Amino acid sequence: MTRVEIIGVERVPEVKPGDDIAKLICSAVDAQGTPLMDGDVVVVAQKIVSKAEGRIVRLADVNPSEFARKVATYTRKKPSLAEVILRESRSIVRMAPGHLITETRQGIVCANSGVDRSNVSGGDLVTLLPEDSDVSARNIRKGIRKLTRKTVAVIVSDTSGRPLREGHVDIAIGVAGIDPISDLRGQKDPFGYTLRVKQTAVADELASAAELVIGQAQERIPVAIVRGYRFRPSERARTAKLIRRREKDLFI
Amino acid sequence: MTRVEIIGVERVPEVKPGDDIAKLICSAVDAQGTPLMDGDVVVVAQKIVSKAEGRIVRLADVNPSEFARKVATYTRKKPSLAEVILRESRSIVRMAPGHLITETRQGIVCANSGVDRSNVSGGDLVTLLPEDSDVSARNIRKGIRKLTRKTVAVIVSDTSGRPLREGHVDIAIGVAGIDPISDLRGQKDPFGYTLRVKQTAVADELASAAELVIGQAQERIPVAIVRGYRFRPSERARTAKLIRRREKDLFI
Repeated sequence: MTRVEIIGVERVPEVKPGDDIAKLICSAVDAQGTPLMDGDVVVVAQKIVSKAEGRIVRLADVNPSEFARKVATYTRKKPSLAEVILRESRSIVRMAPGHLITETRQGIVCANSGVDRSNVSGGDLVTLLPEDSDVSARNIRKGIRKLTRKTVAVIVSDTSGRPLREGHVDIAIGVAGIDPISDLRGQKDPFGYTLRVKQTAVADELASAAELVIGQAQERIPVAIVRGYRFRPSERARTAKLIRRREKDLFI
Repeated sequence: MTRVEIIGVERVPEVKPGDDIAKLICSAVDAQGTPLMDGDVVVVAQKIVSKAEGRIVRLADVNPSEFARKVATYTRKKPSLAEVILRESRSIVRMAPGHLITETRQGIVCANSGVDRSNVSGGDLVTLLPEDSDVSARNIRKGIRKLTRKTVAVIVSDTSGRPLREGHVDIAIGVAGIDPISDLRGQKDPFGYTLRVKQTAVADELASAAELVIGQAQERIPVAIVRGYRFRPSERARTAKLIRRREKDLFI
């Protein structure tokens, strides 16, 4: 029978800059009696990755530019927050009162360049997305392999809004060891019809599946293991494969 | 420990118009030794729902209009296929050679109004989306309750492209018994920060999670059970809640 399990990883301590995420995950899964296995997909919430990498900014330390002040007035955000968001962005997609949609340096279109005030101690602190979440995923994967000798895939996930759909879902912003897209084009269905458009964004689906567990307890479960899913391994995986350039998009 | 299981339902026979999907599911889960339990989320691929509801059209029987012929020429589709797609749509979002993006009558923006040639026997047949997938989900849920006395949630899922992201994911096009959005706005995070934007499209995440199992074997696994996920029950659930009107969208 085909069965996939999503196991929440609890007992991960509050993460601080410089912490070794791989080590924290390995200790936590051992403590709860669900040690990692070859072929597991380890989904790690962006927030703890950002914290471990020191991607935290104190807004009081930020000196907003003239332009950031204008953006802040229009979007009704703090000038220092607008400044941080602009620093993290490659372009502004849309400004509106209460909203600042940008394209991050990695090419993801999202609210506030992923700069976030939730789940960080101290009202004045914000977290930024990792510099390069693929590198973050790769480092965690390497760390896990070193500590356990197990070969897993790692996905760094983030909560994201979506065009044309209400509500957020978790998506993959970093991948390691897994091809983020499963490509069935050219294969035949059971009736002999050749599938022409079947590229599944499995990394996003895995991130969403993990959120079903991670989202149930917020900060208490920052990591989930997806077990039993057969994915296509890739040593050169990059999430860039999941991003469609705005110019190429037919939906919008 | 927080753990969610996704169980593929195999042994569902080839579905024909008039078939009782609830009955087929109940027989199949019993046959494989995983009977339904209270609180399960039963995710059913749109394709078998459409087939059971007789939403199948033979292209040879379709008489394309003048306009459909023009659309067909421009998008390089069969005139009869263009005609069926237009009949299923409320508006055309974008036409391009090889592409016809429309808004379905239910308000979903997708390729070809969900009209699909894959996984249906006979090269000349296409399937349409159910007339109202919420009603389909409700009927399956009622049928399951009648047959098993179990209260489950039902999601009708479909594979969908997405603006700004490459690859398809499965989303919910019909729901019954579950609030499709989990709303955490107003709750505080562990550091006392009040979450302002935390509405999770759990129905879409459940559909994506189920695809990890359904997608592994195409037609052989048209249904998956998600077990262990605590959702908010709703007797008046509608997928309309998941659709953001184009006029209101800030991303595009």
